Amino acid sequence: MWALTELPIVQAPMAGSQGPKLCIAVCEAGGLGSIPCAMLTPDALREQIAEIRFATKAPFNVNFFAHTPPTPDASREQAWLDRLRLYYAEFGLDPADAAKGPGRAPFDDFMCGVIEETRPPVVSFHFGLPDQNLLARVKATGAKVWSTATTVAEARWLSARGVDAIIAQGREAGGHRGMFLTDDIDAQPGLMALLPQVVDAVDVPVIAAGGIADGRGVAAALMLGASATQIGTAYLLSPQASTSAVHRAALEAGRDDTTRLTNLFTGRPARGHLNRYLREQGPMNAAAPAFPLATGAITPLRAHAEKAGSGEFSPLWSGEAAPLARKEDAGAFTRRVWDETRALVASVAKRTRR
Amino acid sequence: MWALTELPIVQAPMAGSQGPKLCIAVCEAGGLGSIPCAMLTPDALREQIAEIRFATKAPFNVNFFAHTPPTPDASREQAWLDRLRLYYAEFGLDPADAAKGPGRAPFDDFMCGVIEETRPPVVSFHFGLPDQNLLARVKATGAKVWSTATTVAEARWLSARGVDAIIAQGREAGGHRGMFLTDDIDAQPGLMALLPQVVDAVDVPVIAAGGIADGRGVAAALMLGASATQIGTAYLLSPQASTSAVHRAALEAGRDDTTRLTNLFTGRPARGHLNRYLREQGPMNAAAPAFPLATGAITPLRAHAEKAGSGEFSPLWSGEAAPLARKEDAGAFTRRVWDETRALVASVAKRTRR
Repeated sequence: MWALTELPIVQAPMAGSQGPKLCIAVCEAGGLGSIPCAMLTPDALREQIAEIRFATKAPFNVNFFAHTPPTPDASREQAWLDRLRLYYAEFGLDPADAAKGPGRAPFDDFMCGVIEETRPPVVSFHFGLPDQNLLARVKATGAKVWSTATTVAEARWLSARGVDAIIAQGREAGGHRGMFLTDDIDAQPGLMALLPQVVDAVDVPVIAAGGIADGRGVAAALMLGASATQIGTAYLLSPQASTSAVHRAALEAGRDDTTRLTNLFTGRPARGHLNRYLREQGPMNAAAPAFPLATGAITPLRAHAEKAGSGEFSPLWSGEAAPLARKEDAGAFTRRVWDETRALVASVAKRTRR
Repeated sequence: MWALTELPIVQAPMAGSQGPKLCIAVCEAGGLGSIPCAMLTPDALREQIAEIRFATKAPFNVNFFAHTPPTPDASREQAWLDRLRLYYAEFGLDPADAAKGPGRAPFDDFMCGVIEETRPPVVSFHFGLPDQNLLARVKATGAKVWSTATTVAEARWLSARGVDAIIAQGREAGGHRGMFLTDDIDAQPGLMALLPQVVDAVDVPVIAAGGIADGRGVAAALMLGASATQIGTAYLLSPQASTSAVHRAALEAGRDDTTRLTNLFTGRPARGHLNRYLREQGPMNAAAPAFPLATGAITPLRAHAEKAGSGEFSPLWSGEAAPLARKEDAGAFTRRVWDETRALVASVAKRTRR
């Protein structure tokens, strides 16, 4: 059973679309709020944790990427920039203005220092786990350590390394896939098949993620053996999220069949709605630089297009259940989803009783 | 509510792996048994229906493909055969022995005649619906007409044409995808996201398919709004299925991450376990002849390999939940799944009560 928070609902960390406000609203409603840290400096993380602790006494989750930084490959990165040169010309921009550097940092000694100092209740990872030494330091703080599995093999790998819970991320999920033992997106099962197999394979609690956006999804995940559920996309239209205007518009216009897995924005597969960039260059493209080095080349194009109100060059991260999302206060949504879940389970129980 | 059979469980029609025996066992257990007709002659169908009616008074489902036959393209088919020439050489076979003709036939005037004569309670279609005239004739027999949707757009299309129920087929499902408004496999959502969106979009009952192999999956589908569930792969290890030895072995060895969508066997995407043929030529290959004309070239290779006990050139159709399947009598399995479903729903209801 789930004992960490009143409701078995985790708000998925969504880098670029949220800060502490969303986290606090979910925590105060009885769910587990999260903050995405991959694009934060240690100082910014310290400030965000202080802001959360000032606003709520409830537990919360800080989420990090645990990838191995790639060896920069100047010729590959230049070739990628050259491929996007036609867009730079169209917009009257100079490819020399492409952003430099990785844009996203993995969990490291500095961030670990912030964890040791601030002791958040839950520390979760995406793309595997940090090295043994860092992991031991996080555990020594007393934090619950979670990570994401996209296959049974990944769940077993995480379980063998002592995580306290596993997030089973179905193929439906929006944003970056947590995959780390394979880079083959065809090997990524849907949640309906993945979740019970992960539950059977490991002894720790399993948190279901992907395609869950209302009480029906939460109830379904509980039936499949989840201890809790993680919801992302459905929070993106809330006033507490910092979702951009073009992203909100895409979520409202999107359909069940208009998201794709794409590596065009960062170099790793992530799910978002189709736009011109995906249609013309992807959605997957083997020439994209290694994660996260594909980020720089698109940055000026995205900024230019967004300034003109266009999301055609933006990552429009979204799970496959985006059409179920509503404009709704994040706290009210969290409570509503749980009320729906309980009513639904009770009603199906009545119908299926002998 | 589901009133057609005692249990809201439909046995998925699986051409090539079953005949009336499996159908009868499921019907007698209180589920809805099915017979796949795409590879039958009208006479064989007549005989199978007679065999079912002799064995059970319960309703059953006959399933047809509703594709538009392709215009044969001799040069494309020859090029495909040339591509497989290396395997013919390896096996000492003559490419001239490749099977001719389509191998699978769409629903037509002859089959419609059998339906009018035998009046099965349910007639279901894959790949859309037959033409208006044939559809009207089937409806005039009093049969319930079902078809498969893989997206909300397909569900709306079917609903507008007056189907009595829609099978929402998640990406997890084994065998041929029923997709007919798109040929883009990236546009195929997982069941967790697809099912509630289809339920919201149409007024007819929705039957959930894909990744369901035990009571957990059935309970989850009911929570997502399904009126019933369709189970395929989990029946393939039953003694009543005619699953080949190499196929059974693949199902027992397969994992959550070892199925792929492939068009190599028929020309249309279908989910099956990886083998040498998929690894070397696919899993998807744009050069494959149009459905079902890719079938002929692989037939002698498959037969030769299977004779030697190898499934490396066989379609090893499987959904993503294959590891949940057990060797079990099909009737006992049907009852067990429903008992599990009811117990599980009752137990979660108890846990989520205030």
